[in-house]
Amino acid sequence: VLAQDLGISRSTVEAAYTQLAAEGLLQRVHGSGSFLRPPRFQGAVATLPLRLPAQLSARGREVLRIGGCLDPLEPLPFAAGSPDLRDFPWPTWERLARRRAPDAAELARYQPPQGQLRLRELLAEHLGAARGVRARAEQVLVLTSSQQALHLLAHLLLDPGDCVWVEDPGYRGASAAMAAAGARLQPVPVDAEGLQPRPGLPAPKLILLTPAHQYPLGVRLSPARRAEVLALAQAHGSWVMEDDYDSEFFDAAQALPALQSQDADGRVIYLGTFSKTLMPSLRLAYAVLPPALVEAAVASRSLHDGHGNGWFQALVADFMEGGHYASHLRQMRAQVGERRQALLEGLARHLPWAQPVAPQACGLQVCVALPSGQEVDLSRQAARLGVQTPSLAALCALAPLEGWLLGFAALRPEEIGAALRRLGGIQPRGQAREIAKSRPTTLRANR
Amino acid sequence: VLAQDLGISRSTVEAAYTQLAAEGLLQRVHGSGSFLRPPRFQGAVATLPLRLPAQLSARGREVLRIGGCLDPLEPLPFAAGSPDLRDFPWPTWERLARRRAPDAAELARYQPPQGQLRLRELLAEHLGAARGVRARAEQVLVLTSSQQALHLLAHLLLDPGDCVWVEDPGYRGASAAMAAAGARLQPVPVDAEGLQPRPGLPAPKLILLTPAHQYPLGVRLSPARRAEVLALAQAHGSWVMEDDYDSEFFDAAQALPALQSQDADGRVIYLGTFSKTLMPSLRLAYAVLPPALVEAAVASRSLHDGHGNGWFQALVADFMEGGHYASHLRQMRAQVGERRQALLEGLARHLPWAQPVAPQACGLQVCVALPSGQEVDLSRQAARLGVQTPSLAALCALAPLEGWLLGFAALRPEEIGAALRRLGGIQPRGQAREIAKSRPTTLRANR
Repeated sequence: VLAQDLGISRSTVEAAYTQLAAEGLLQRVHGSGSFLRPPRFQGAVATLPLRLPAQLSARGREVLRIGGCLDPLEPLPFAAGSPDLRDFPWPTWERLARRRAPDAAELARYQPPQGQLRLRELLAEHLGAARGVRARAEQVLVLTSSQQALHLLAHLLLDPGDCVWVEDPGYRGASAAMAAAGARLQPVPVDAEGLQPRPGLPAPKLILLTPAHQYPLGVRLSPARRAEVLALAQAHGSWVMEDDYDSEFFDAAQALPALQSQDADGRVIYLGTFSKTLMPSLRLAYAVLPPALVEAAVASRSLHDGHGNGWFQALVADFMEGGHYASHLRQMRAQVGERRQALLEGLARHLPWAQPVAPQACGLQVCVALPSGQEVDLSRQAARLGVQTPSLAALCALAPLEGWLLGFAALRPEEIGAALRRLGGIQPRGQAREIAKSRPTTLRANR
Repeated sequence: VLAQDLGISRSTVEAAYTQLAAEGLLQRVHGSGSFLRPPRFQGAVATLPLRLPAQLSARGREVLRIGGCLDPLEPLPFAAGSPDLRDFPWPTWERLARRRAPDAAELARYQPPQGQLRLRELLAEHLGAARGVRARAEQVLVLTSSQQALHLLAHLLLDPGDCVWVEDPGYRGASAAMAAAGARLQPVPVDAEGLQPRPGLPAPKLILLTPAHQYPLGVRLSPARRAEVLALAQAHGSWVMEDDYDSEFFDAAQALPALQSQDADGRVIYLGTFSKTLMPSLRLAYAVLPPALVEAAVASRSLHDGHGNGWFQALVADFMEGGHYASHLRQMRAQVGERRQALLEGLARHLPWAQPVAPQACGLQVCVALPSGQEVDLSRQAARLGVQTPSLAALCALAPLEGWLLGFAALRPEEIGAALRRLGGIQPRGQAREIAKSRPTTLRANR
């Protein structure tokens, strides 16, 4: 009857009924007919009360106080920390994905908590060649992010109240992870040679460092300071966490090997991420652990969130194995270098009152110092012109440094130029222009 | 010269040199020649010492004691917990992926820590219709896994030493996450009506439940016990965590709405996962939070690991929005039903000494009770026949129940039959066959 009514073939109707029955929507009773099956629930959505009937734990209240550490900024100039995803080699990526399609079911299964072995082997090899890291696959732990590495290891290594030295200014995500683990943060000032330990600081259980490219100032931990930090760690029995977040973008001439390569007794933990070298939303990062830490860290990973995504681990391994990763990094290095040049030239021309702190450094962002007392006002003016200028003062624990952390790597030279021309209309108050120019180094002058 | 030597065109050589220069491997000096650039590091891989120079924290040592909670089993019969990934609608999935390819760069960016809004909206709608969950998108937190939800919320809600009621037997990943947060675990026995609270138990800060399909026994929390648990939680000011891990595979007739639908004052936290309804390695799960918990949980997520994978969030949202998810679940329900039937028939025929504990239940695994004192021996014999028989005793904290937790959902009926025929060769010792048959219910007899 239905076939006649609709003017379609009987076999089409039969196929439709068969499908509906297979999906459990129809029940077909032989000799009796087809019957609709009832829906599962009538989702009665009501509002739940907003008061909290039970308590957060003390650490829960602390998390609420710390707050989230990541606001995904719109990729406007000059949001920091992202590569240019428009220029990612998508055709290569998609070709590799198509080649992997037959393995989709296999890669969709539960995965090893430590990460796929092939990816760990490729990472160990790459990090040895690119960063001088002494790693074997057994020491590599694949995680979702540096943030996960920091959070997981903080809980594994720190008792509540333990002292952690953090760079000041420093990366908020890292200190927030330490604080969430109950650590007592000891800000340690950074000068042109990097972290500057002073006598009289409380003994650290852990020292958190960005040796290659201090976040946010951009300076490099000098060879003398590297030795000093390692000696201090040895004297105090401290862990050292090396967050090597963007050194893959450095020219060979600029890069020192990772601090981990100088570690004599297995106290340096090396952290790196694919968020910047490939893409942020991949959720793939890695820690190279002292061998004695591996078992506890893998157990902790399994308790934290089981394991990582199998598909992207395989795809990234293919990308590395085919030489695409090394090639992509080389091209990114050249591209980021050009863009940094465009930023520095534009700053000199349009914003002479904004002084680059470490103009010789590489990486994905440049820190500029601003005339004293004017960061808030200048940022407000920039925002009105549609330009984001992430605040340096917000990253300081002790004396606030006034400045901006300008992320330029996701912007083409012409986009950088256009944004700086717009900012060029801003004028700092008073004699600030002359003051800024007369400073010996803006970094010291501000402290 | 090179073009002549190789018998190729000059423009090919020129293109190769240009590429090598762009990648930073060659330096071309006009009028002087092309020069190799030095490699970055000669990865000097050496072995690091195995002793631990610094200490783990107290909770780090506890994690080491607890150990990892996930061993990715080979998908042999009868490894528990996985759907049949061979039958996943890969062509649909790949079609949706191709349609999304133009958005790859956009989806590769930093993501909101709470999860993509569209996915949260679709989840709220689906969970209302399918499970009676009262959820709005603002209450949904997208995470990587139920394990992450358990771990994150345990730390947010529990102070060290707080009492948590866990089902006994129960899911080890859940109790391990609670223990890692410093909780004192109070095992509460499970009978045919589910969790069986007894007078005199210490007041819980949190009650951990699998109401729809108790893991591992497979019983359903009865309406009377649901009311009892909620009243107890209210009396003690406790949180209730409802781990609804496989109820999407239940027939309408079998499923009660989620316990969360009966929550009068916002103390029930609902957890679900795509690991079983789609695939384990996706790393997408979700919590529906009481509104008052959202801010702290999102901050904690951002501290734990930032955010989730953007590509798969969008793809799953597309899959849901196109109706493919509902359709896939209906087909899986029918398929899992057939397979359970095959398992129960095969058990009756080949293993009359193995008694299904809750044969009427649905879900992805069936628990069978074994003759007393023989689990270890019978499992060893099964292993020799190449059949995995996950241990029930291993999931017990109080009196050990001897049995197997047989995951059948990833196996076709003929594979189930073949594995059971192989197991049929095993004979329990002594009169066990008669004993097992004479029990009123194996569940009570074993306690």
